[in-house]
Amino acid sequence: VVIRLEIAYDGADFAGWAAQPGRRTVQEELEAALARILPEPVRLTVAGRTDAGVHALGQVASFETDGVVPDGLADRLNAVSPRDVVVKSAEPAPDGFDARRDARSRSYRYRVLASRTPDPLEEGRALWWRYQLHDKALTACAAALVGTHDFTAFTPTDTGHVRFEREVFTAEWSRDGEILAFRIEADAFMRHMVRVLVGTMLEVGGGRRSVEDFARLLEGAHRREAGETAPSHGLYLESVRY
Amino acid sequence: VVIRLEIAYDGADFAGWAAQPGRRTVQEELEAALARILPEPVRLTVAGRTDAGVHALGQVASFETDGVVPDGLADRLNAVSPRDVVVKSAEPAPDGFDARRDARSRSYRYRVLASRTPDPLEEGRALWWRYQLHDKALTACAAALVGTHDFTAFTPTDTGHVRFEREVFTAEWSRDGEILAFRIEADAFMRHMVRVLVGTMLEVGGGRRSVEDFARLLEGAHRREAGETAPSHGLYLESVRY
Repeated sequence: VVIRLEIAYDGADFAGWAAQPGRRTVQEELEAALARILPEPVRLTVAGRTDAGVHALGQVASFETDGVVPDGLADRLNAVSPRDVVVKSAEPAPDGFDARRDARSRSYRYRVLASRTPDPLEEGRALWWRYQLHDKALTACAAALVGTHDFTAFTPTDTGHVRFEREVFTAEWSRDGEILAFRIEADAFMRHMVRVLVGTMLEVGGGRRSVEDFARLLEGAHRREAGETAPSHGLYLESVRY
Repeated sequence: VVIRLEIAYDGADFAGWAAQPGRRTVQEELEAALARILPEPVRLTVAGRTDAGVHALGQVASFETDGVVPDGLADRLNAVSPRDVVVKSAEPAPDGFDARRDARSRSYRYRVLASRTPDPLEEGRALWWRYQLHDKALTACAAALVGTHDFTAFTPTDTGHVRFEREVFTAEWSRDGEILAFRIEADAFMRHMVRVLVGTMLEVGGGRRSVEDFARLLEGAHRREAGETAPSHGLYLESVRY
């Protein structure tokens, strides 16, 4: 049987999703919790391998097992898991379902606190940005993102990726008071891609780079031509579509 | 000169506002920060003495000093303060201004996560409530709250208060997805008042108590007739009006 899990986590105290020796990771915590409940160990496959510090609202993972899966698996997992990771649902999936391979798109959100002073309740939840930001410039960048582009400039050069084109289905900036949020849905993302996009768009929003230059980078450019990688604590894996 | 401070804090690691020997409090942290900047020590007066664990978005405090107050006081204070307390502004106030005495109203917000599963990103930010809640019953309670009432049933019996009437200017429940928020503005609040109101309204929302019974408690009743005190981590002092 294949089980599909929907998962949320506060990334602050995790070295990301993927299991790594000697580091606390989401995958490891969940596989350990599953091992306490299922008759045999299982291996999780995940839709979005988030980096250290990145949060998730609607991450999706799956596993296959020949063992008996008890009822109320989500509640059982939450009862034995730490408070910073929560299984929102655990349901049987069609045979052969694979959370990573079958995902049609992933949506990420990046939150920026645009304010003269920090906000203690947004500490670790949004990037505090005290400089001027022009909403119109940000919106123009988001519009330029929609479609298929070459994102070579937006991922580290020491990459395992071989294909640098990704299709962006939606991209938009929205404002709620002092919180600016960037939401992007694409078929797939490369490592650091959303964070470098945000770091570069913040330069455009501050007038230090033109929208045209940002659009040019989307046709393929060297990493050094794009902006800085925005910090991980503003980034949320929002949802996955199948 | 009198200085008025607007302050935000994450209440999680504070034993409340008021200085207490051997406990970490917001007042103490801020007075210590002020002592590093001003030529002589000052004593803060505050609009809302929040309890341990209660957050603040727009707390107001004031102090009087004969010493020289440097420019950019807010930024200077933030530079020497811990990250869970932030001075949003520090401005000269009219002579004789007193943050507590001159306040015309305080507004509090209580956040409830109404969901089958907890949310790791709302941990310490909202009360997780997994039971049914009828929005209409909550709204009826809020409507009953507006006006002047006797809140004896909504504060501990070992109280220092001598007058138990308070005037509620606005009270409302609103929903944003799985987050239910109760907002109340009143001339003043007694200790635990918002939290006992919320604890009692959650009983009404769950059908274990009638709206009529809730309304009856507002005419004066014993503390034991009201519901439980909702936990502090869902409560935010939102703003103060002068």
